Amino acid sequence: METFPVETRERTEVVDVTGLVEGAVRNSGVHEGAAVVQTPHTTTAVVINEREGRLMQDLLDWAARMAPDGAGYRHDGIDGNAHAHLRGIMMGASVSVPVTEGRLALGTWQSVLFVELDGPRSRRLNVQVLGD
Amino acid sequence: METFPVETRERTEVVDVTGLVEGAVRNSGVHEGAAVVQTPHTTTAVVINEREGRLMQDLLDWAARMAPDGAGYRHDGIDGNAHAHLRGIMMGASVSVPVTEGRLALGTWQSVLFVELDGPRSRRLNVQVLGD
Amino acid sequence: METFPVETRERTEVVDVTGLVEGAVRNSGVHEGAAVVQTPHTTTAVVINEREGRLMQDLLDWAARMAPDGAGYRHDGIDGNAHAHLRGIMMGASVSVPVTEGRLALGTWQSVLFVELDGPRSRRLNVQVLGD
Repeated sequence: METFPVETRERTEVVDVTGLVEGAVRNSGVHEGAAVVQTPHTTTAVVINEREGRLMQDLLDWAARMAPDGAGYRHDGIDGNAHAHLRGIMMGASVSVPVTEGRLALGTWQSVLFVELDGPRSRRLNVQVLGD
Repeated sequence: METFPVETRERTEVVDVTGLVEGAVRNSGVHEGAAVVQTPHTTTAVVINEREGRLMQDLLDWAARMAPDGAGYRHDGIDGNAHAHLRGIMMGASVSVPVTEGRLALGTWQSVLFVELDGPRSRRLNVQVLGD
Repeated sequence: METFPVETRERTEVVDVTGLVEGAVRNSGVHEGAAVVQTPHTTTAVVINEREGRLMQDLLDWAARMAPDGAGYRHDGIDGNAHAHLRGIMMGASVSVPVTEGRLALGTWQSVLFVELDGPRSRRLNVQVLGD
């Protein structure tokens, strides 16, 4: 497994990590298999979609409408960031992407995106490549 | 990895692809492992649930309430389909299903469902079967 | 693949199944790989997040706001639990977690959580560990 540092700079932010995952696939030497891409944090997510800049802002704005900050959550008595946990659960903590002929089987418009929901922070990303 | 064509006929639609995934598992000869089922598109999703017809309509209607079409998204200045991207992120672009004794470990009521969110279009589905 | 019984006691409830998944990883003898954790039911989910008690209540309350019970769903003419299916689709039926050095690569605050959305019932959890 490879672990990469991801430094986020904003309270909420989308970071394109496709290149990191592609590097892990190359380093693994796997020809046919899959990459499991996982965040080890509870207020971030990993998703696959188009990395177009305005869409990324739409994603962060939409997530904020789905689970607004400070909407009377019980956990906020402890930590103040329940909204970030809920958005992370909605988007998911890991994705699996097939690897074929030594490359990630992403579509033309797909990128692997790390979503910061309670930053800025020093984060990590785990990539495990399975197969032969 | 096997890639299957999926032709969608409606603007939004759910297509049961369980048979395609089961075929890929059989062809792979894998006895113990997992199937990674992935859409290479950014305005579709792959989920696991019951394929009952009225529930599938509920799913599409519910997704439309969660991320309504044309709700002032910035990306709509470029492409007009931000709602479909957001619904796809909410549902997810891939699922992993265990394979045991040469078969998908789906429950009695579970099917693998391809969700079209910006059709109709000619789509593809990737299935990679891992294991021995 | 290992299958574990999960008995739920409430209508909606979060059960920490991290220990079950860790046990399956140990039993598998896999050193480098990934665990695919899947629910075979259509009104439950498996997610990764912090198991803090108040946050778990927030999660169930939030899911109930996202897909309220009895909100005029068509499927409710058949079964009365469309809301539980929709919440399950939103959260997801499976997660994949890297295994490295013989252990699940969960972050400090992460647990694997089984989410009951239409209980109480006798449920099952499937864990398949891939790798060497």
